[in-house]
Amino acid sequence: MKKILICGAGMSATDLISYMLNHSEQYNWEVIVGDIDVETAEIKIGGHPRGSAVYFDCYDNELMERYIRDADIVISLLPPGMHAAAARIALRHNAHVVTASYASQEMEDMHEEARKNGLTFLNELGADPGIDHMNGMRSIDKIKAKGGEISAFTSYCGSLVAPESNDNPIGYKFTWSPMNVIQAGSAGACFFEKGALRCLPYNRLFTDPTIIEIPGFREFEAYENRDSVGYRKKYGLDDIPTMIRATLRYPGFCEAWELFIRLGLTANNYHIEGSENMSYRQWISSYLPRGHADLESALADQLGIEKGGELHKKLLWTEILSDRPIERVNGTPAEILLDLLLERLKFNSGDTDMLVFYERLEYNLEGELYEHVSYLVTKGLDHWHTAISRTVGLPAAIGAKLILNGEIKSRGVLFPWAREVYGPILNELEELGISYETQDNKIQNSKYE
Amino acid sequence: MKKILICGAGMSATDLISYMLNHSEQYNWEVIVGDIDVETAEIKIGGHPRGSAVYFDCYDNELMERYIRDADIVISLLPPGMHAAAARIALRHNAHVVTASYASQEMEDMHEEARKNGLTFLNELGADPGIDHMNGMRSIDKIKAKGGEISAFTSYCGSLVAPESNDNPIGYKFTWSPMNVIQAGSAGACFFEKGALRCLPYNRLFTDPTIIEIPGFREFEAYENRDSVGYRKKYGLDDIPTMIRATLRYPGFCEAWELFIRLGLTANNYHIEGSENMSYRQWISSYLPRGHADLESALADQLGIEKGGELHKKLLWTEILSDRPIERVNGTPAEILLDLLLERLKFNSGDTDMLVFYERLEYNLEGELYEHVSYLVTKGLDHWHTAISRTVGLPAAIGAKLILNGEIKSRGVLFPWAREVYGPILNELEELGISYETQDNKIQNSKYE
Repeated sequence: MKKILICGAGMSATDLISYMLNHSEQYNWEVIVGDIDVETAEIKIGGHPRGSAVYFDCYDNELMERYIRDADIVISLLPPGMHAAAARIALRHNAHVVTASYASQEMEDMHEEARKNGLTFLNELGADPGIDHMNGMRSIDKIKAKGGEISAFTSYCGSLVAPESNDNPIGYKFTWSPMNVIQAGSAGACFFEKGALRCLPYNRLFTDPTIIEIPGFREFEAYENRDSVGYRKKYGLDDIPTMIRATLRYPGFCEAWELFIRLGLTANNYHIEGSENMSYRQWISSYLPRGHADLESALADQLGIEKGGELHKKLLWTEILSDRPIERVNGTPAEILLDLLLERLKFNSGDTDMLVFYERLEYNLEGELYEHVSYLVTKGLDHWHTAISRTVGLPAAIGAKLILNGEIKSRGVLFPWAREVYGPILNELEELGISYETQDNKIQNSKYE
Repeated sequence: MKKILICGAGMSATDLISYMLNHSEQYNWEVIVGDIDVETAEIKIGGHPRGSAVYFDCYDNELMERYIRDADIVISLLPPGMHAAAARIALRHNAHVVTASYASQEMEDMHEEARKNGLTFLNELGADPGIDHMNGMRSIDKIKAKGGEISAFTSYCGSLVAPESNDNPIGYKFTWSPMNVIQAGSAGACFFEKGALRCLPYNRLFTDPTIIEIPGFREFEAYENRDSVGYRKKYGLDDIPTMIRATLRYPGFCEAWELFIRLGLTANNYHIEGSENMSYRQWISSYLPRGHADLESALADQLGIEKGGELHKKLLWTEILSDRPIERVNGTPAEILLDLLLERLKFNSGDTDMLVFYERLEYNLEGELYEHVSYLVTKGLDHWHTAISRTVGLPAAIGAKLILNGEIKSRGVLFPWAREVYGPILNELEELGISYETQDNKIQNSKYE
């Protein structure tokens, strides 16, 4: 019997847990789900005889050691900084590791040790990073196989509410790690366009979003992800002139979000002493000049937007100037903003979420220019089996199965752009209803001329 | 014989080392100076029989342990994050600690343990923080003693080149930790003004500096320091309506520096892959839109400044658009900028540096409003005995002497706003030629009405 340790039973673990339990009889698995919230872990296991919930705190080394020691594979949905810590323990106790997050340098540095120990540490195997990598590499390999020369690779993904649940003026609800959303883009973005490096600092990242149309569905806007540059090498497109990875939002989001950034409300590097004694209105007033008739005008003037105009209304809708008391004690601006938006942009129990993927390549084939477009829109099934839980959890689950069954044979620190990984996982995702539409069109001019 | 360990022999250690050696016969001290650059430590010791230089790397725990174990007092000029690590070892081996830097929460949390062990951990005992605290508390205590009620406390300090060495258009040279200067203000600033909290995010911190005139000398401009709020409580002015601590620069600096911030060049949270293969011109072009006749115009347009105007000229003077190759491998923007400015804003061997302190309080006394102004301008004696070395090193040196001689009796984590500390240190600094001018003027209106 193989022991599988799932670390984390949160929002994106539901379908991962279900998948592992549903296959546990067939493959003779025991599934241990660890979380500081044991009750949630138990609910998600649902009394399955091969599942058990345990109290697991990734900041408690002894607990980490105790559960990882006995595992054959660790599927880590821990906070970003903790995957490498879990992997280091797994290295000592001969357990494989799967994560749905970006691999840190520390993780990458374990490659040789993992390889020598016969272990696979498979990273970036979720939605984004994950499904986007896999479909991207499938497209790249197909085009290369027929002799095409790829000149542009662009890839976009968004975790959003479905249009039918998109009922607030900001166009966003928290379906996914809220602090990551508040801090998104704070390191700016670098990418390649027409053969040249381009960088956007945080203060310009949201000011001029790209419009992306998902064929037959609707338009979104996109801001660039932190690091697209490194993926030229990772995808085997070392000299490609255009390489952009980006995040999708509903139209109008970026313009509104940029106001929070410009006011300084997304900063997470200092604390507002005594924030618990202030109202939101008092807090925001500290960022505004004096001598105005009212704070609403001061806010509009500070941001250079029209008082009473659409943007001003959006901002006031968040209740940022309300007398609502701040609860966070000595909070950072980002934390104080988060608490407000968690209420105002709440993903409610009746809401449906949605993952949108869009990928566009340009390539030359026999003297002609083509675009290869592929896209995928998938909605949540219910409040538990959300789109984010399915798209993050299922790739990780399938990846774990392939390692345990010996179908993924490579050892060391591994990524889903390896064909051995993306091939079988994309196939099984298709069977589970998560599949891309694809078009190849001859085009006259590059979008990047 | 008492053993004194000085950790760090860099720019601000020269006068500290001299002071301790000059008093070593009188008090029977042995002075050990540890640095990764043993040669510099040896030069600064200058063959003094009671001094010795040792190889010391604060990231090597074993070395830290070995030298702190034998010390009676540790004077730490280590990088900001390392004081607490040194203090934790000092706690185990019964050594006092003196630092010239802001105390971290970790340091403050050692108060009870240090007190129980009969140890004094004296922090923030340099120039700023340090001399500013001490003069501030002396002013506060004097005004309180005569029955005055303080309504505003503002304190400004700058480490600059002297006017006779201020020969570049930016008005700055690196006389002090260069990366700290590049990153200065990146967490924004919070302060109290007229009874209300005010916060300035990074993007607005340099846009509207305050003008400060040092009587009989010249004008400077000032931007607010990160956290002024906490000093209300620390200085015993819990309900004071106005509390501002700020940094002084030559006029025109802030306007120019803000251009770097707006371009995104001071960011230190991501790496430019392959920066070592680029020129500065190529790098900056990645931050600018395409389709301009020339990069110089693109730069002016991006920043909304006049091409060929004074600001544009200042920026080009830095050679930011030159073909100079970038040497830093995969550098962050801040690192790449630092390398350039270290050359362009170099503190040369013939240059003189200068510390400028300015403090202004408002208080009510018997129904009348007064201002209490005090200021101090001190220049370096030569390239080794700089103003920064004297103003950072001498307070720390005198503080260490007072602890060793039993004149400072308080135990635990201590700060220079304690009268027992600031009294004797300010007196001795005056004897060494570092002394404030003071004025008390009756005024009609508060500056903060």
